[in-house]
Amino acid sequence: MSEPFTPTERTRVVREPQRGVYDRETLYRILDEGLVCHVGFCADGQPFVIPTLYARIGDAVYFHGSAASRMLRELDSGIPACVNVTLVDGLVLARSAFHHSMNYRSVVAFGTARKINDPDQKTEALRVISEHLIRGRWDEVRVPSEKELKATAVLEFTIEEASAKVRTGPPLDDEEDYALPVWAGVLPLTTTPGQPIPDSRLAEKTAVPAYIRHYRNGIK
Amino acid sequence: MSEPFTPTERTRVVREPQRGVYDRETLYRILDEGLVCHVGFCADGQPFVIPTLYARIGDAVYFHGSAASRMLRELDSGIPACVNVTLVDGLVLARSAFHHSMNYRSVVAFGTARKINDPDQKTEALRVISEHLIRGRWDEVRVPSEKELKATAVLEFTIEEASAKVRTGPPLDDEEDYALPVWAGVLPLTTTPGQPIPDSRLAEKTAVPAYIRHYRNGIK
Repeated sequence: MSEPFTPTERTRVVREPQRGVYDRETLYRILDEGLVCHVGFCADGQPFVIPTLYARIGDAVYFHGSAASRMLRELDSGIPACVNVTLVDGLVLARSAFHHSMNYRSVVAFGTARKINDPDQKTEALRVISEHLIRGRWDEVRVPSEKELKATAVLEFTIEEASAKVRTGPPLDDEEDYALPVWAGVLPLTTTPGQPIPDSRLAEKTAVPAYIRHYRNGIK
Repeated sequence: MSEPFTPTERTRVVREPQRGVYDRETLYRILDEGLVCHVGFCADGQPFVIPTLYARIGDAVYFHGSAASRMLRELDSGIPACVNVTLVDGLVLARSAFHHSMNYRSVVAFGTARKINDPDQKTEALRVISEHLIRGRWDEVRVPSEKELKATAVLEFTIEEASAKVRTGPPLDDEEDYALPVWAGVLPLTTTPGQPIPDSRLAEKTAVPAYIRHYRNGIK
């Protein structure tokens, strides 16, 4: 068991404090299930929120993009950043409009990001992102060339503080509303893979790999 | 046809400019399909990214929370805000690691938010959020009481500038990589409803409503 995160001014869950979670295992599981994180930063007082693919190892979150990306250059200057990953688990239907809710798991992490310059570390971070998204893929594909590596910026964001907010379970109605003749409960929502669409230029007899046929994100 | 958004310093898609979309209809469709938006703002140079439910009418995005919410109070002071909605449509598997991608539709909108004080406008905005998430629900449930309305803050965020970034279609590999004997294509991903879970205190013979049995978000 690793240490839980210490709640701070920035991370303590104030609204609905019973939904606040600080233990690293839970936060790691949420981060490891998401596909896209939302990265926030300020430039001249203007907030930017940009979605990006990512992966987590320990308290590090890796993301990448074009070496010319404005966002990655801004972040590499060491400014404060915020990373959010939100998983939607279901719609919660109560008898009153007021008590409707969503079941979700969401991590907010604060820290700073730095560019990885060493080519081997960079390739390793790209492998980690690739394996986070599609486990088993990296070993089958052509790895990045030197030129491709140079065109790619990879950032390591270090989580300094973080918390999660988690809601699960049925609706919680006011006692007098339970008698209302209205359906209540939870409609689960999941991210589901469809039928793989083969590329039109696929070499003949190239089978769909097992990691795609049985794709599930977040299962490590 | 309404006017497209004018690309600005903040919204012009610089990386992969062919993915940049500015016409209002496309942006509206993306905003109308999402369930959760990510709201970004800066407080003392610190960025915050918070997920929240929302709905759009014209260039207004509505979201709500506790009247005591820090985020909503911060935003109501008129500081610059950024709203992002990202829809993940699929994983794009190329023959090279470098050309892997994701099919997605993402809107970044800049503007400011203000609290709605008029109780009727507030109730109407809550109805709009409810109908955005579960069309048909509002007319069946107990509407907010005066006390509940007071405990709820509803903000109207006005989109001043916005753009979308959209990727669709197959992987685009380097010409020499097409000969590689590796599967390539797209794995579609969708948000899918599961079996509704009835609340344990459901009044007898309360049927699952059609809007839940046939639930699809974003279909207006």
